[in-house]
Amino acid sequence: MYGLIMAGGYGARFWPLSREIMPKQMLRIAGKNTMIQNTVQRIMPLIPLNHLYIATNEKHAKIIDTQLKEINCAENNINFIIEPMGKNTTPAIAVAAIYINEIDPESTMVVMPADHIIQKKTKFLKLLKQAEKLANQGYLVTFGIKPSRPETGYGYIKAGKKIYEGFKVDKFTEKPDLKTAQRYLKSSNYFWNGGIFVWQTKAILQEIKKYLPFLYEKLNILKNSPNRLEALKTFYTEVESISIDYGVMERTDRAAVIPADIKWNDVGSWSALDEVIKKDSKGNIITGNVIDINSQNSIIYGGSNLVASIGLKDIVVVSTDDVILICPKNKSQDVKTMVNKLKERKKEEYL
Amino acid sequence: MYGLIMAGGYGARFWPLSREIMPKQMLRIAGKNTMIQNTVQRIMPLIPLNHLYIATNEKHAKIIDTQLKEINCAENNINFIIEPMGKNTTPAIAVAAIYINEIDPESTMVVMPADHIIQKKTKFLKLLKQAEKLANQGYLVTFGIKPSRPETGYGYIKAGKKIYEGFKVDKFTEKPDLKTAQRYLKSSNYFWNGGIFVWQTKAILQEIKKYLPFLYEKLNILKNSPNRLEALKTFYTEVESISIDYGVMERTDRAAVIPADIKWNDVGSWSALDEVIKKDSKGNIITGNVIDINSQNSIIYGGSNLVASIGLKDIVVVSTDDVILICPKNKSQDVKTMVNKLKERKKEEYL
Repeated sequence: MYGLIMAGGYGARFWPLSREIMPKQMLRIAGKNTMIQNTVQRIMPLIPLNHLYIATNEKHAKIIDTQLKEINCAENNINFIIEPMGKNTTPAIAVAAIYINEIDPESTMVVMPADHIIQKKTKFLKLLKQAEKLANQGYLVTFGIKPSRPETGYGYIKAGKKIYEGFKVDKFTEKPDLKTAQRYLKSSNYFWNGGIFVWQTKAILQEIKKYLPFLYEKLNILKNSPNRLEALKTFYTEVESISIDYGVMERTDRAAVIPADIKWNDVGSWSALDEVIKKDSKGNIITGNVIDINSQNSIIYGGSNLVASIGLKDIVVVSTDDVILICPKNKSQDVKTMVNKLKERKKEEYL
Repeated sequence: MYGLIMAGGYGARFWPLSREIMPKQMLRIAGKNTMIQNTVQRIMPLIPLNHLYIATNEKHAKIIDTQLKEINCAENNINFIIEPMGKNTTPAIAVAAIYINEIDPESTMVVMPADHIIQKKTKFLKLLKQAEKLANQGYLVTFGIKPSRPETGYGYIKAGKKIYEGFKVDKFTEKPDLKTAQRYLKSSNYFWNGGIFVWQTKAILQEIKKYLPFLYEKLNILKNSPNRLEALKTFYTEVESISIDYGVMERTDRAAVIPADIKWNDVGSWSALDEVIKKDSKGNIITGNVIDINSQNSIIYGGSNLVASIGLKDIVVVSTDDVILICPKNKSQDVKTMVNKLKERKKEEYL
């Protein structure tokens, strides 16, 4: 079994802790290790390090490399796929699939994001083995996370008829409105799309060929080039930017889902910390240089400057060395809007 | 006519802009000048600079001196009463009264805080002249500010029978609860005690002698000493710390009040800025290094670090070089509690 860790993201909703130079997957958000360290350690029992690929850009590869050395996963064991630019998930998956398939045409690969929390680690590994069986039947398997709240920020998967260890996917759905999300929550057929996939490399390559023939064609650049980095650069420049969900999963009839009760959390915004970090008796998560009086249900991260907070309710405060974010928890999705605004205003120093 | 400007305060509720080294009266809170500069310029048409006394401590006297030079009020014209320690208002008033009375036994003096805003300046001067007439009848005259809201943070004055240009004071009242404050607001007999007084020096000295004989006795130290600074030090060390309201005004039967509609504001807390600074179309006061998305009715002061605020409602954010305060507007009185907490925790660097 092979693995691909998607570590190309920025984690804009985790700004200002998450920065271009140090995105979310490299932060110690919950606990002493970084998220990518946790992701590698989690999968290690199942996938040997030399079977593991990490897709990221050049700068981040160096930092990730350092972080993996910290946990004794040496550089020469893990393969980096250096992305010359961000082009969503499909190009990285296609590249990894080609590389792995060249080594072993009958190989199965797991695709997983670098910046998610999975608390039930043993269960996760067990489900991966289960997914492998399904993948060996030719299915493109996705993990379906059981919804715990009417989340409107995720896509959902509707499970169809039972097959072997899981279900056929009936359909993928767009991010729902609140009412629809509440209906999904009550139903037992709907799952969150956690971005974790298991498939045979030959199967995903077949489907990419079928639904994204242009991109598939361009994979030849990689096959025939003596210089991997150069070839990747040409490939990435030429292909379209498209997610594997939109490019393949929503179109294929080979999609399957395995319900996964693994205490998964994508820590997709500041308010998500409520589910992964222990709160104090007033419901607060307070850490760093903070003096607080009577705040409730708030998340307060102090930085180099003292944060003096009084009577806050459901507010997120994150102070770093150069910036401070303040927003109500229920607006924490809008942190991405703030990041975009900073880009618009050419405030690169804060990105 | 002589004047005493009380500039000994800290302005704890205006922390963290107001600091021990640079308290509220020395800040440019509303407009281009500092509050003490405004206070001096406001009174200048009525009181010549060499008739003006400023009570403050040694460190602050130097800063005030610099600020007054900025507005061309040179050092040798204004008299500083250097307080070796804070002992509330009565000692400073008694000292100024003695000094002025020695120069002119028939003199009248105005006492005013250094850190209040008065927008109707001409009206203020007119009322001072009116108060002078009343003072010349032997009354201790206080300015009664017409309440504009059911404020529970101030003492109130109840006006009694009409006399000449004003009213006898029926009584001074403690800070009321909200219900009482609402009743006062509806009545036309209740006024805020704005801390502005006019009296003959001989009259206030007579009343200090009557109600605070110990303190009065100690004034002899000042009369018989060749070294003013040394004498002040001894005097301040020995006398009690007591406000003129509690020490004299609430006990004397010579108290009078002049209703003063002068657009007065003591800028006693961050939320008070709403009344003195023009708000934007969303009701915000935003200044400095701030990028805001959709906040309402909030006060946001950016400092060296960028403040990125999203969707705040009725929140005060004040960022300085080393600290950031965040609190709901209706909790802005509690900033003083925060300052006390910092003292308790020996965080002097933030005071």
